[in-house]
Amino acid sequence: MAFEILEKDLAGRIGRLRIRSGVIETPALFPVINPVKQVVSLNDIAEIGFNQVITNAYLLKRHYGDLVREVGVHKLLNWDKPIMTDSGAYQLLMYGKVEVSPDEILRYEIDIGTDIGVILDIPTQWGRPREAVFLEVEETLRRARAALVKAKMWDPEHKMLIVGPVQGGDRLDILSYSAVKMGELNFDIYAIGSPTTLLEEYDFSTIMRMIAVVKEKLPPGKPVHLFGAGHPLILPFAVAMGIDLFDSASYVLYARDDRIILRDRTVRLSEVRVDRIPCNCPVCRRYSVKELMSMNKAERERLLAIHNLYVLWEEIQEIKARIREGTLWEYLEEKAGGDARVKSALMAMRKGLRALMKVIPDEAGRVRALHVTSVESLQRPEIIRHVERLLNNYEPPQGCVVVVLPGELLDRPYIRDSLVYWLIDQLSGNNLLSRVHVVINNPVLGPIPYEISEVYPLSQHEYPEPTPNYLRSLSRQLLRKYLTKLRDRGFTDVIIIVRDGRDKFINGLMNMGFRGMVILEARSRQELYSLIPWVIKEVSNIQCGN
Amino acid sequence: MAFEILEKDLAGRIGRLRIRSGVIETPALFPVINPVKQVVSLNDIAEIGFNQVITNAYLLKRHYGDLVREVGVHKLLNWDKPIMTDSGAYQLLMYGKVEVSPDEILRYEIDIGTDIGVILDIPTQWGRPREAVFLEVEETLRRARAALVKAKMWDPEHKMLIVGPVQGGDRLDILSYSAVKMGELNFDIYAIGSPTTLLEEYDFSTIMRMIAVVKEKLPPGKPVHLFGAGHPLILPFAVAMGIDLFDSASYVLYARDDRIILRDRTVRLSEVRVDRIPCNCPVCRRYSVKELMSMNKAERERLLAIHNLYVLWEEIQEIKARIREGTLWEYLEEKAGGDARVKSALMAMRKGLRALMKVIPDEAGRVRALHVTSVESLQRPEIIRHVERLLNNYEPPQGCVVVVLPGELLDRPYIRDSLVYWLIDQLSGNNLLSRVHVVINNPVLGPIPYEISEVYPLSQHEYPEPTPNYLRSLSRQLLRKYLTKLRDRGFTDVIIIVRDGRDKFINGLMNMGFRGMVILEARSRQELYSLIPWVIKEVSNIQCGN
Repeated sequence: MAFEILEKDLAGRIGRLRIRSGVIETPALFPVINPVKQVVSLNDIAEIGFNQVITNAYLLKRHYGDLVREVGVHKLLNWDKPIMTDSGAYQLLMYGKVEVSPDEILRYEIDIGTDIGVILDIPTQWGRPREAVFLEVEETLRRARAALVKAKMWDPEHKMLIVGPVQGGDRLDILSYSAVKMGELNFDIYAIGSPTTLLEEYDFSTIMRMIAVVKEKLPPGKPVHLFGAGHPLILPFAVAMGIDLFDSASYVLYARDDRIILRDRTVRLSEVRVDRIPCNCPVCRRYSVKELMSMNKAERERLLAIHNLYVLWEEIQEIKARIREGTLWEYLEEKAGGDARVKSALMAMRKGLRALMKVIPDEAGRVRALHVTSVESLQRPEIIRHVERLLNNYEPPQGCVVVVLPGELLDRPYIRDSLVYWLIDQLSGNNLLSRVHVVINNPVLGPIPYEISEVYPLSQHEYPEPTPNYLRSLSRQLLRKYLTKLRDRGFTDVIIIVRDGRDKFINGLMNMGFRGMVILEARSRQELYSLIPWVIKEVSNIQCGN
Repeated sequence: MAFEILEKDLAGRIGRLRIRSGVIETPALFPVINPVKQVVSLNDIAEIGFNQVITNAYLLKRHYGDLVREVGVHKLLNWDKPIMTDSGAYQLLMYGKVEVSPDEILRYEIDIGTDIGVILDIPTQWGRPREAVFLEVEETLRRARAALVKAKMWDPEHKMLIVGPVQGGDRLDILSYSAVKMGELNFDIYAIGSPTTLLEEYDFSTIMRMIAVVKEKLPPGKPVHLFGAGHPLILPFAVAMGIDLFDSASYVLYARDDRIILRDRTVRLSEVRVDRIPCNCPVCRRYSVKELMSMNKAERERLLAIHNLYVLWEEIQEIKARIREGTLWEYLEEKAGGDARVKSALMAMRKGLRALMKVIPDEAGRVRALHVTSVESLQRPEIIRHVERLLNNYEPPQGCVVVVLPGELLDRPYIRDSLVYWLIDQLSGNNLLSRVHVVINNPVLGPIPYEISEVYPLSQHEYPEPTPNYLRSLSRQLLRKYLTKLRDRGFTDVIIIVRDGRDKFINGLMNMGFRGMVILEARSRQELYSLIPWVIKEVSNIQCGN
C-alpha cells in the first residue's frame, strides 16, 4: 500500500505517501512550478521546506516536446524529489481547448518520469448547464477507465501514481455520482476538480460541502487532492474534511499583485502601514516594508513569493502539529473567529463531518483540553459522540435517587474534586451509595454521571465564564433528556442543587413526573459544602422500591 | 508632551514616547534583563527588534552598588537604547521585604541614568484582606507624592520619566480609588500592579476588568504599563483596552521550562510531535525539534528564549498592523475562537470598552470590512454606536409608507445595488419618493435606512451565511424598535418583503398598530424584482396624511 495513515483528528489525517522519488508526508502542498518561467528557484523552494512540486505536462510538451522524454522531468527541473504533473485540464478549463489527446498526455507523463500524473479529464466549468456537466462527467469517467488500461500497458511496473479527478462542481448530486464511479476505479490518488471560482469569491462553505460529498463516497484509505487551494484560510478546513494534498500557484499569483499572504488574511504591500511585516520569515526579517516597496518589480515579486511560500509552509506545519495535538477543531474556530466567510465554512462542516464520522475511528489519548467557545463548538464530533453515548449507550447505575450537583462550583475532573469525593464518601459510609446516582450538571455539556467524569472530554474541557446563555441550550436539553432516561429506569426522586434557585428552566423540571423533586440553591462552594449533610439525611429518608 | 498618540482602534493606540535615549513606539514590550545572569544577549534582543529593555534597579544596587552610579546603567548593560528599571517592588511582593528605602532607590535610578524609573510602591498581594490592601494603597500614594517631590530635586531637568503604579489587585473599588488618586499626581507613565497570579491561572477576564477600571480614571493622554504580561494570548486584549507598555520575563521563564510560546498557545518542546516547530523564526528555521531536544540544557534554554522573543516581537508587530488596519476586534475574536479562557476575556471587555468609548473619538476611514462572527461581534463598539445613533439621533425622512427589503438578497453597500436603485428610480419617476422610506433589513444589523447605507460599517461588513438564529436577535430587536420610532413619527403603512413569509417574528410585527401592514415573500432576487411593480402600485394607492 502506497499510502499509510499515521494519525487522525476530525476527518483530517497525517499520512505517508511512498512514491518513486521519495516519501511525501501529508497533508502536503505542491507549489506550482511554471516550467517556462519560474519566479522562485527550486532551490529556494526546497530550502523553505517543500519536498514536492507540481508542474504542467501539457506546457512541458508544448515548450520542450521530446527533449523532456530524453532527459526526464527531474533533470529538466533539476529537482530529484517528487514531481506531480497536471495534464492540461486546467488549460482546457481556461481556454476551452487543448491540442493534445488524453492518451498522448498520459503517455508523455509516463515517459518523462513524472511521479504523480493527472489524467486529462474535463473540468467542470462554473455555471454550466446541468446536462452538460453530466455529459462531461461521463466523458471524464470514460477517459478515466481508458487511462487505467493504458497505464498498465505503458507503465507495467506502476512507477507513476495516477490521479483520478472527481468533477461536477457545485452540482452536488453529479459530484456524488462522479465520486462513486471514480471510487470504483482503482486510482492511486483522487482529486476534487478545480474550485478556483469559489476560492476567489471566498465561498469556502460550498467547497466544504463539495469535499464532504466526495469524501463520503471515495475509498477512505486513498489520498485525496484538492486542486488550486493555497490559502491559509482554507487549508486547515480542507484538511479537517479529509483532504491530504494541495497544489497552488497562489504564492506567485499574489506576489505578482504585490499581495502578501498572512495566516489569517491577505494584505496589499501598500496597505501595510507598519515598518515591518508582522512575520519572522527570512524575507521579512531582512527587508523592511519600505525597502520592499522601493525595489524593482521583479525582485519584489520574487521576494514576496518566497514570503508567501514560507507562510504556506508554516501553515501546513501548524496543521500537522494540530492534528498530532488533537486540537485541529480549536484551530478552525480560531480562524473562523476573525472572518465571517470562514465562519460560514465552519458551519458548513457540520453535516459533512457527521457523515464522515461514520468512517472515522474514535480518538484516544488526547492530552489537551477541549475548548468550547461558540455555538459551533457544541456541534463538534467529540461532543456529538458523547451526547449519543450518554443518551443511547450509557448504562447508569441502579438506584432510586438522582443527586445533581452544580458543575460551576466543582473542579474537573469531577471525580477528583474534594467536595464530590466527600459526598461519595459520606454516601458510602451511610450505606446509601447503592441507591444514589450522582450527576454533575455542567453548564455547557449538561449532566455528567460521576462514574464517567474522568472520560475525555468530560474530564478536560474549558468554557467561558460567566457562561453565556447561548452556550447553555445543549446542557439544558441534555439534562431534561437524561433525567427522562433515569425516570424510565425507575429513579423516583431527584435532588438538584443549582447556583441560582430562581432558574426558570430548572424549576420547569418539576413537571417531569418524579415522585419527589427538591431544588436547592448553593451560590458558592462554601454553601454547597454546608448542604451535603442535609442531602445525606434527605437521601436516607427516601423510601426506595415500590 | 512626551507621549503622542498616532492612531487608534478600540481603546488601543499606537503612540510615540520620547525619552532621553530615543523614541519608543507603542505598544511596546520591554524584555526583562537579569543584570546578573542574562540568558539572551542584548545584541540578540536588539537584533530581534526590541528597542527597549527593563532591568531591576534593586538588583543592580545589591550586586554592583555604586559602580553603576559611575559608569551608568547603559554602559553596564552595553545598551544605548531606552532602559526602564523596576524598583524592587516585585521582590517585596515575592520575599516580603527589600533592604532599600523608596528614596534610596529613586535616587539610585536617577543616578545610574535610567530612562524610565518605577517608584518603590507596595504591590498588592493576592488574597490579602481588604483593609490591608487599602492601607497599602494609601502608603503607595504617600510614597508616590513624595517621589514626585524628590524627583524634582534630584532630577531637575526631568531626564528620567517616572512611573506611578496603580495598586489594589482585584479589589476593584480600591483599584479605582487608587487610579483616581494616582491620576491626580503628574506621573509621566502609569502602571497597573502585578497581575502575575491571574496570568498564571489564565484568568484573563479579571485582568480585563482591572484595566477597564484603571483606564477609566487615569488621564487618557498618558501611557499605561501592565506589569508582567508577556503572552500573545493576553497582549492584544490588553492593548485593545488601552495598555501601551508591557514588560515580561516570560520568554526566559518559559524557555527554562522547555516551553515554547506560540501565537495562540504554549507547548512543551517534548510535546511537539512534528519534525519542526510551526514557526519561521531564525531559531526554528535552523534547528529541528530533534536537534533542540538533544542539545545541552543551557544552549536549548537560550535558543528557546530567543524563539519566544521572536514570537513576542511578531505579536506586537501584528497588533500594530491590526490597529492601523482597524481590525483589532477581528484579531481578538480570532484569539478567542480557539481558547475558552480567552473568550472569557473578550466577553469581559464589553462593559469596560463601553465606558472607555466615551473618551475614544470616532474612527473614520476604515477600509476593511467589519466581520460579524459571534454573539460578541454584535457588541463591538462600532455596532453599539450605530444602534444608539439609529434609535436616538438619526432623523428619518418624512413620509407615511415604510418599505422594508430583505438584506439577504441585496449587495452591499445597498445604495449601489441595482435592484434598490431601480426601486428608488421607479418611486421617483412616479413622484412617490417623498412619501416612502426605504429600509433594508439586514439579517444581523437590522434595519438600515437607504439614506445611510453607505456609512461604515453598514456599507461594509460580512456575516456568516446561512445566518444562524443566534446572530439574528439584535436585528430583530432593532427592527421592532425602529418601526416603533417610525410609527411615532407618523408613518402609517408598512410593506415588508421577507425571504420567508412564515417567519414568526415578522408576522408578530402585525400587532404594532400601523394602519396597514403587508408582508410579502421573495425567496430569490428574481422574485424580489418581480415584486417591485406591485410595491409601486401599492404605495401609490396609499392615502398619506389624515
